[in-house]
Amino acid sequence: MVSSPPPPPPCPFDKRFPSQLRRDDTFFMSLAYNQAIDAWRLDEVPIGAVIEIGGEVVASAHNTVEGAHDPTAHAEMLAVTQAAAHLGDWRLEGATVYVTKEPCPMCSGAMLMSRVKRVCYAVPDPKMGCLGGATNLNDLPRVNHHLELTAGGVLEDECRTLLQAFFRAKRDAPDV
Amino acid sequence: MVSSPPPPPPCPFDKRFPSQLRRDDTFFMSLAYNQAIDAWRLDEVPIGAVIEIGGEVVASAHNTVEGAHDPTAHAEMLAVTQAAAHLGDWRLEGATVYVTKEPCPMCSGAMLMSRVKRVCYAVPDPKMGCLGGATNLNDLPRVNHHLELTAGGVLEDECRTLLQAFFRAKRDAPDV
Repeated sequence: MVSSPPPPPPCPFDKRFPSQLRRDDTFFMSLAYNQAIDAWRLDEVPIGAVIEIGGEVVASAHNTVEGAHDPTAHAEMLAVTQAAAHLGDWRLEGATVYVTKEPCPMCSGAMLMSRVKRVCYAVPDPKMGCLGGATNLNDLPRVNHHLELTAGGVLEDECRTLLQAFFRAKRDAPDV
Repeated sequence: MVSSPPPPPPCPFDKRFPSQLRRDDTFFMSLAYNQAIDAWRLDEVPIGAVIEIGGEVVASAHNTVEGAHDPTAHAEMLAVTQAAAHLGDWRLEGATVYVTKEPCPMCSGAMLMSRVKRVCYAVPDPKMGCLGGATNLNDLPRVNHHLELTAGGVLEDECRTLLQAFFRAKRDAPDV
């Protein structure tokens, strides 16, 4: 008999409802945080990303690696593809990427290759982060594009608490 | 009046037809090279990738950044997604990626995140390559997976000639 997978641990956190009137870093990071909540509810590692151009959200996504069986389906990658489809251009000029955790090697590279203007991440990742954590791909000597960075400080505690609680809940879940 | 884009410069190179009986690095790189030829014919930067597991090709793709308006649509990324779909698992254990040029930051990261066993690339890229060229993401101190590398030497001249000829043809093309 094939047993169904155990249900995901319930998410004890609520979404945020920031005012639409103040479109600052905390506003956009709140939307990325809400994407991360959606990821948890699907039993995915709770990381979310939003891309803003000219004050408007042009993409929002969360990690779907497990459900899609796709190692490239990180929040940032999906958001970059969405934003490029919206613009009809692979060059995401003037874009800011908001993401709840520092991008991994792949996603940091995608930020460079798509020429986004700025990356604002909530939680630094000294293990795998490649925009200042473990290394900084922005510093490759011959790279032809440089990202502005806001490295931590925007909803950092909230996004870290969410990630840590998810992994704790997964560890504590009974084996089925 | 909207003018149509100029036609791509004709590709002066032929595909390779290696024997199926000898499935060595040159065999699989020849298939990646053929993907690169297909890219040129679509006016895309001619880079191709193939993924092999247990002697079988489980994915093959070429760069489609311009046509798809997608900065993430590099040959390696598309091949990784294909291979994961084939396996039904994001972990590409035992896989070797053959690619005609050293992977960029994004694609090098995807190799790590998908836990492929080995990467064999034809042409090193000292400017943007992140598996030995500009840097080596394999050497991140706390990374939890290490790639075996074959860095250059397999159809290297053929793949380099193809890339250089494409960029020369684009530079020399008359403005329309």
